Amino acid sequence: MSYHFLFELALILLSTKVLGIITKRIALPQVVGALLAGLVMGPAMLNILQETTLLDQLAELGVIVLMFNAGLETDLGELKKAGRSAFIIALIGVLVPLIGGFFLTSFFNQGSDTLLQNIFIGVVLTATSVSITVETLKEIGKLSTRSGNAILGAAIIDDVLGIVALTMITSLSGTGANVLVVLLKIAAFFAVSVVVWMIFHRIVEWWFKRYDRDKRRFVVISFAFCLLYAYLAETVFGVADITGAYIAGLIFAKTPRVAYLQDRFDTLSYTLLSPVFFASIGLKVVLPQMSATIILFSVLLVLWAALSKVIGCGLGAKLCGYTNQESLRIGVGMISRGEVALIVANNGIAAGLMKEEFFGPVVLMVIATTILTPIFLKLVYRGKEKDYSDLQESTLVNRYEDAEAFDLAAQALLEDHERLLHGSNEDHKS
Amino acid sequence: MSYHFLFELALILLSTKVLGIITKRIALPQVVGALLAGLVMGPAMLNILQETTLLDQLAELGVIVLMFNAGLETDLGELKKAGRSAFIIALIGVLVPLIGGFFLTSFFNQGSDTLLQNIFIGVVLTATSVSITVETLKEIGKLSTRSGNAILGAAIIDDVLGIVALTMITSLSGTGANVLVVLLKIAAFFAVSVVVWMIFHRIVEWWFKRYDRDKRRFVVISFAFCLLYAYLAETVFGVADITGAYIAGLIFAKTPRVAYLQDRFDTLSYTLLSPVFFASIGLKVVLPQMSATIILFSVLLVLWAALSKVIGCGLGAKLCGYTNQESLRIGVGMISRGEVALIVANNGIAAGLMKEEFFGPVVLMVIATTILTPIFLKLVYRGKEKDYSDLQESTLVNRYEDAEAFDLAAQALLEDHERLLHGSNEDHKS
Repeated sequence: MSYHFLFELALILLSTKVLGIITKRIALPQVVGALLAGLVMGPAMLNILQETTLLDQLAELGVIVLMFNAGLETDLGELKKAGRSAFIIALIGVLVPLIGGFFLTSFFNQGSDTLLQNIFIGVVLTATSVSITVETLKEIGKLSTRSGNAILGAAIIDDVLGIVALTMITSLSGTGANVLVVLLKIAAFFAVSVVVWMIFHRIVEWWFKRYDRDKRRFVVISFAFCLLYAYLAETVFGVADITGAYIAGLIFAKTPRVAYLQDRFDTLSYTLLSPVFFASIGLKVVLPQMSATIILFSVLLVLWAALSKVIGCGLGAKLCGYTNQESLRIGVGMISRGEVALIVANNGIAAGLMKEEFFGPVVLMVIATTILTPIFLKLVYRGKEKDYSDLQESTLVNRYEDAEAFDLAAQALLEDHERLLHGSNEDHKS
Repeated sequence: MSYHFLFELALILLSTKVLGIITKRIALPQVVGALLAGLVMGPAMLNILQETTLLDQLAELGVIVLMFNAGLETDLGELKKAGRSAFIIALIGVLVPLIGGFFLTSFFNQGSDTLLQNIFIGVVLTATSVSITVETLKEIGKLSTRSGNAILGAAIIDDVLGIVALTMITSLSGTGANVLVVLLKIAAFFAVSVVVWMIFHRIVEWWFKRYDRDKRRFVVISFAFCLLYAYLAETVFGVADITGAYIAGLIFAKTPRVAYLQDRFDTLSYTLLSPVFFASIGLKVVLPQMSATIILFSVLLVLWAALSKVIGCGLGAKLCGYTNQESLRIGVGMISRGEVALIVANNGIAAGLMKEEFFGPVVLMVIATTILTPIFLKLVYRGKEKDYSDLQESTLVNRYEDAEAFDLAAQALLEDHERLLHGSNEDHKS
């Protein structure tokens, strides 16, 4: 066995944490530092770290745990209320970048047989990667706001719409599956999920209540359930695994042990999985040689990627009765594209829908939006917004947004316990 | 990307936990259930799971975290006191199986050029894999006993002696490195470790005291340090990575944040890494066709593997002034061979020192000792033994041996916090 992976993991933990502390000190989210760590260590700069199977799979586990935890935090009642809005926000937020991306690319890529190629760049622009936003909102304590919830809801529907768009264009290019079958499978997934939720949510509540204390088995079994559901979503229904993980999280949300589960999955996440996830995004950057035209295209693509989500999702939010401030926040929260756009782009190259020369700009767009989103989010989330904790008394969830607050509390408890133990020891001696 | 690893991890978490709960119910350690899960799911029976790079590397991370946590729990003052004893226990505990293993194999493997082959089987029998014992002792709350500490100390020295024996025989066979160089590197590793400990232990204490509360960075940076030290031990000094991880743990032991670190690494361990580690041992079992002679040899090898450590280490312990009961416990605690024996055997086949037909018996020996050790340990640890918590007031460490006790305490705290928050909310409303 080669032991080099130990070195790689040590380097990732060290560099993401150190750069994260630095970015935090200059008032940027730690996520930006973690992404930069990947960029600096990876092929784009120092080339000390490269992608490996282990890092790829740990990164995937990292997104799954992040989305599972987002599901645990979600108030399904609120999400249901936000359902119609979320759909409208997602739909307009998909159409605007899709259409604009098509026209932008058409200007740079002309000739016969380029129609599908140009639509495809539009499709790449549709997929929001909400995990960066979720992590940033958690860090600044704004996930449980009205706009935070709208972003989560819209991102889920956005994911589905992105899958539909990808499936339609690949089937149009003659290499993909039947569109109708794909649509039916997606519909089936959500129908099955509703049934699974109704059955398992009750079972979980009953099971969690059987014991009067937290047990490790709750954590391990719920994690197994999450992984299984993510796997089935991906393989049986063709839906993204992170969507499955999020829905698995919803099943355990609002149960008596949810605070305990969140704390444990948070620990699993920050000790290993999420540093690897964020670093691995930076590692993906291997920019090919680019001509002046392609550099211009890259810049315009980044601008349009950011602007189109703010316009599209912001417009959708405004139409649904959100305030101007909330609409702006929702639009900004949907800017980041991540691994989804990269996976779509990879698929496109394999299916002959994307020219190699456009892969560079797409990677650049993903990196830029991923780095810009947390910075912009922090800017637009200055000032107050009504918090669900006031509306719904879900204080348990909000308290967990700052894990260190819990650590502090646990430590106070330990010290107390310590004192008590010493007291009883002395009793014993006397 | 193939998503099959999600299914594999879900299956491992589910099967190890369910079988662990069952074995716990019939008064066996959960570790036995976790090992059986790997056996049942793996190539030996159902063949649903096979070894993969991800599982191998996660398993390796799992042992590293287990050994790091064992280091965190170690009272170095006690270990120093036990140093001479540990050396004598380890030395006799290596010589007895080595010599007996040689004679046993000589009886079954005769002819020219078999001398080194027969010694090699003896060498395979030397290496104790202490991680199973550590996990079992943690589970039954006996790690911080006099015998528990002796086992830890002896296992470390045993590891070094095993490396020396392996290196000597492979260099004798003409394919390995220079014995003297290897011995010097091992000595250099421990000399360097003493210096590193003296420098970093103080730095860590100073750093942990700078803040008045627990911080995530403590966990992440210490984990990175552990991985780096494990990596350097393996690659620079040729010492096992788990020895490096254990010494890294010693550097953070007895610092102000050690209880917090232990809780977090315990979580990382039980939510993902240690289930994979234990299952992966079971997955390694692919028994070839065996003749009656080889089956007889296997049975005798298992018996001698168990007996020789009880005799050798027990005798060593007795010579060092331990009680009969403690000597028996120490001998039993050293029975389990694990991944180390398998790695040594693999090396042996590669170096032409081991016939293919002997690999089956060796695997069987590893599995049998690994399953028998926790069962025997539970038997011999019935009754009381003086606990270090009484001697040294290191109650903080002992309390952590039952993580669920902490979880319970944390939950009580949460409920309290909840009540306080609701109280203050009502104040706010009124």
